[in-house]
Amino acid sequence: KTHTDCMTSRRIVTLPGFIDVHVHLREPGGTHKEDFASGTAAALAGGVTMVCAMPNTNPAIVDRETFTQFQELARQGARCDYALYVGATDTNWAQLPELASQAFGLKMYLNDTYGKLRMSDMGAWQRHLSHWPKRAPIVCHAESQSMAAIILLAHMMDRPIHICHVARKEEILIIRAAKEKGIRVTCEVCPHHLFLSTRDLERLGAGKSEVRPILCSLEDQEALWENIEYIDVFATDHAPHTLAEKESEQPPPGFPGLETILPLLLQAVNDGRLTLEDIKRKFYRNPKNIFNLPDQPNTYVEIDIDEEWTITNSELKTKASWTPFHGTKVKGKVHRVVLRGEVVYIDGQVLVQPGYGQNVRTPQYSAKALIAQQQLDAMG
Amino acid sequence: KTHTDCMTSRRIVTLPGFIDVHVHLREPGGTHKEDFASGTAAALAGGVTMVCAMPNTNPAIVDRETFTQFQELARQGARCDYALYVGATDTNWAQLPELASQAFGLKMYLNDTYGKLRMSDMGAWQRHLSHWPKRAPIVCHAESQSMAAIILLAHMMDRPIHICHVARKEEILIIRAAKEKGIRVTCEVCPHHLFLSTRDLERLGAGKSEVRPILCSLEDQEALWENIEYIDVFATDHAPHTLAEKESEQPPPGFPGLETILPLLLQAVNDGRLTLEDIKRKFYRNPKNIFNLPDQPNTYVEIDIDEEWTITNSELKTKASWTPFHGTKVKGKVHRVVLRGEVVYIDGQVLVQPGYGQNVRTPQYSAKALIAQQQLDAMG
Ligand SMILES: [Zn+2]
Ligand SMILES: [Zn+2]
Ligand SMILES: [Zn+2]
Ligand SMILES: [Zn+2]
Ligand SMILES: [Zn+2]
Ligand SMILES: [Zn+2]
Ligand SMILES: [Zn+2]
Ligand SMILES: [Zn+2]
Repeated sequence: KTHTDCMTSRRIVTLPGFIDVHVHLREPGGTHKEDFASGTAAALAGGVTMVCAMPNTNPAIVDRETFTQFQELARQGARCDYALYVGATDTNWAQLPELASQAFGLKMYLNDTYGKLRMSDMGAWQRHLSHWPKRAPIVCHAESQSMAAIILLAHMMDRPIHICHVARKEEILIIRAAKEKGIRVTCEVCPHHLFLSTRDLERLGAGKSEVRPILCSLEDQEALWENIEYIDVFATDHAPHTLAEKESEQPPPGFPGLETILPLLLQAVNDGRLTLEDIKRKFYRNPKNIFNLPDQPNTYVEIDIDEEWTITNSELKTKASWTPFHGTKVKGKVHRVVLRGEVVYIDGQVLVQPGYGQNVRTPQYSAKALIAQQQLDAMG
Repeated sequence: KTHTDCMTSRRIVTLPGFIDVHVHLREPGGTHKEDFASGTAAALAGGVTMVCAMPNTNPAIVDRETFTQFQELARQGARCDYALYVGATDTNWAQLPELASQAFGLKMYLNDTYGKLRMSDMGAWQRHLSHWPKRAPIVCHAESQSMAAIILLAHMMDRPIHICHVARKEEILIIRAAKEKGIRVTCEVCPHHLFLSTRDLERLGAGKSEVRPILCSLEDQEALWENIEYIDVFATDHAPHTLAEKESEQPPPGFPGLETILPLLLQAVNDGRLTLEDIKRKFYRNPKNIFNLPDQPNTYVEIDIDEEWTITNSELKTKASWTPFHGTKVKGKVHRVVLRGEVVYIDGQVLVQPGYGQNVRTPQYSAKALIAQQQLDAMG
């Protein structure tokens, strides 16, 4: 697994192409913040070869018309593979299920955050839970009591549910208890909740620290680490806004994260808080299994495992052009990314054009992946 | 069951002494609003022979010292039988269980309302759920998502839970679904949510209409009636404040209810929306069974079933001296109340002194009730 790079004499570790099930690419409607082309460039620079794009765009992706537009924009713009969410509203529970096979899954917003997709009435939650196909994913922005509430509702309907960006002690303890009772709930955590807390509010300032869920206490953060075995998935919640927006009177919530997640996780390995196996499990294998995602054949990421560097705003590919981790020293850097047999990234350079990325929620994608796998097997 | 009153030629119906599991008697600390003597006089005038008094007094009833004071005030003041709640706080989960056998049950406040007992952290909820004895009642002020959350937590710990004052469609539909899944949840509804709605806000005015849960929409109200079979208990949430307080700048939430619940329910029988059997089940038998309350031997209420009258502020025994039902025409009036063999109320007059009421959560009470029952049985 580890070999010495002939050019640099550094150790290279090969890891799977990572899957980020929670990104906001801001297209349509917010392309000054990000678009499919820039967001998927950031993904590849971060070692992420598949992104799952959230529907709280403008317009929001809530019906066939907007979903078709979303698919077309992604087809034209994406440099890495992708799947696309649809968003639940108080009224679209009957028409959305016809999109279930083509969508990554259904996103339900149960608390206030960026965009206008919040559903406050639990009757609407129930209608979505009962109409959306049981085998298709449902993913919820659900904090605190809303989280416990949606877990109850899903449990009563005997269907699995995925909880986004767990951030608080009370949240992970309830998820832990639910898992121990055999309730079918999975969850993700974001690097900013693992590595930032209320201690960072002053350093970041009022605007740049705005994120949902908010940055929580050290006690919350410690509970996430103590219960990391109950956290299924690492995801970025990549939610770019420009620096001007973040420093405005009404700063929108959200951090970019695609280019910093892997270095931060690798640093946690260096610090003895995670293993490489944890990263592969929670940032590749678990998302693939939980959400029934196809193989990306001949896809992998090479890491310069000993390279020490400092995360810097100026080197980012996201249009956000800033990160709450600016100035953070890390060890381990993405060297090369290979996606479906092509070198798509090497040492800071994205080598692939918009349009290379494929929608993984198509029959064609799965068929191609199967053939490629058979060829690999035949080659032994 | 029905006999003709010799004095008035009116039909009298004999009903059990009713049990109100949710009253605020404001003692200690709010005796200008109510006290044990006035609140239990109102209870008897309303046909209620057992009240369960909430712990959000001043000081709140949250430890042995305050509970002992609460017991003593009740012993001195109560004219009808009673049981006393203790209140959960973020910190008293370890010490409260020693009071479980003497208390009516544990009250958990999960949403903002009158008093300062709200617990917002679900970790504290979990600690109370796991420490309070499984066979002792837990009763929650839990609205909307908080309600669903506490049902999940209780279900995961396999313990029953009672939800106070269900008011919204989303709430009763979740309770219904939970019951259908075999989850051990019971609930109560208050007359003001059955008989008032947002349509009454203007008539009552901003201050007098303040109550928690708030008065809800007609759709919510209709959902309560449509799902009345899933509602276990009628309770008043008798929460008196003076008219001056209600009409002040910061009106506190709450309505008095002890003297109006039974006439309102009887009117609903006249309107064909309930049966007398529903009233006996939900306002006597179910509370008795759910909360494991002893018999009140030789206790009953005689109703002038044909008497038509108008609910009037000036005739109330509660110190609040007002009711949101002032002016409401009803048919059916409490004629006489017999409690443990004594006539304690007749036609507007409370005939019993403070101190007659007994705490039903004592071994003595249950023993006496058993002996009295045996005597009745022996008399055949
Ligand atoms: Zn090499
Ligand atoms: Zn979110
Ligand atoms: Zn998000
Ligand atoms: Zn290199
Ligand atoms: Zn309440
Ligand atoms: Zn269950
Ligand atoms: Zn109350
Ligand atoms: Zn009479």
